Amino acid sequence: MIFYDCSTAPSPRRARLFIAEKGLSIETREISIAAGEQLGPDFLRVNPRATVPVLVTDAGTVLTENIAIAAYLEEMFPDPPLMGTTPEDRALVLMWNAIVEQQGGNPIAEALRNSNPRMKGRAITGPVDFDQIPELAERAQTRIGLFFDLMEDRLRQSRYLACDSFTLPDITAFVMIEFARVVRRRIPEENTATRTWYDAIRARPSAAL
Amino acid sequence: MIFYDCSTAPSPRRARLFIAEKGLSIETREISIAAGEQLGPDFLRVNPRATVPVLVTDAGTVLTENIAIAAYLEEMFPDPPLMGTTPEDRALVLMWNAIVEQQGGNPIAEALRNSNPRMKGRAITGPVDFDQIPELAERAQTRIGLFFDLMEDRLRQSRYLACDSFTLPDITAFVMIEFARVVRRRIPEENTATRTWYDAIRARPSAAL
Repeated sequence: MIFYDCSTAPSPRRARLFIAEKGLSIETREISIAAGEQLGPDFLRVNPRATVPVLVTDAGTVLTENIAIAAYLEEMFPDPPLMGTTPEDRALVLMWNAIVEQQGGNPIAEALRNSNPRMKGRAITGPVDFDQIPELAERAQTRIGLFFDLMEDRLRQSRYLACDSFTLPDITAFVMIEFARVVRRRIPEENTATRTWYDAIRARPSAAL
Repeated sequence: MIFYDCSTAPSPRRARLFIAEKGLSIETREISIAAGEQLGPDFLRVNPRATVPVLVTDAGTVLTENIAIAAYLEEMFPDPPLMGTTPEDRALVLMWNAIVEQQGGNPIAEALRNSNPRMKGRAITGPVDFDQIPELAERAQTRIGLFFDLMEDRLRQSRYLACDSFTLPDITAFVMIEFARVVRRRIPEENTATRTWYDAIRARPSAAL
């Protein structure tokens, strides 16, 4: 297998943490987004949509989305389980992962890509350039606040997002929340359940990656 | 189990088609978005995020995202398989479903919610009101064109989106493309592979739902 990573971007970090939590070591190639390597001909041959992470399986199948990479590795390397151990928990893992991506990941990316001067013309990830929409960055900031509320509500009921144990959506949310610093957002002081959850994940060896 | 549906909205239609393709009959309750029932106290007790579809399992677990509902039903009712039959195909199903949601579903929803006078103040689904951003509706229209290109590229290589057989991402894309009519977009005449794929799915009994 070959894992295409980028040490500075949040999406590949999600896959990197998942791989580390599985205790796997996979041949890794670094794609520098700062140097525009995701748009170069070599990488576009691997993934024409110009996004990282990518996992190429031993059979040559190209998996370009975090959820696909995680599900594939979970099937091939079941221990430790990171996507639930019962049908209901497995469904809750997918549900919470989707909620975190939509309610957290999307507005955080929108806030950054539509406001940062260095991302001018790069408001959407992928091979096509799009202008920034400042009003969208503002709306996204409001939505990030709602996402923190949503996390806090859930983590007051449950130690981890999907179920009693640490699973994929915890990785997704952890990476998104650390990345939110680029748009000057951190877990609010009063969100004590979220802070306890964050500290527990921050203490895991994978979190250093 | 109880399935909360809405006959006029695209997201619950995805779950409805999946249930029909499985040959299941599940107790169904209609939530009228036109009447605002998704924001009423009865439904908010089921799903505080105010979205349909929802599947409540026999154990009382509330599943609020299409991917979670599909994965749960696939595990409980494996035949016919709609999410792949090998680890690689199962990963490709999740990958293509995510691509269709992000590259197709998101811009179609953005185009509608940020332009339609009847959705003023409802630019984001869920319990909180957001103003429309007309510039976002325009950008979304451009992205819908790119999504049709992406579909055509894929369907020139593969009869169905994820693999050789009809699976979840085909349902997702079919529902999204039919819904795109509300923002005056249809499969371009010259996208012959997509039109062949569309006609094949349109002929399935589930497509009438």
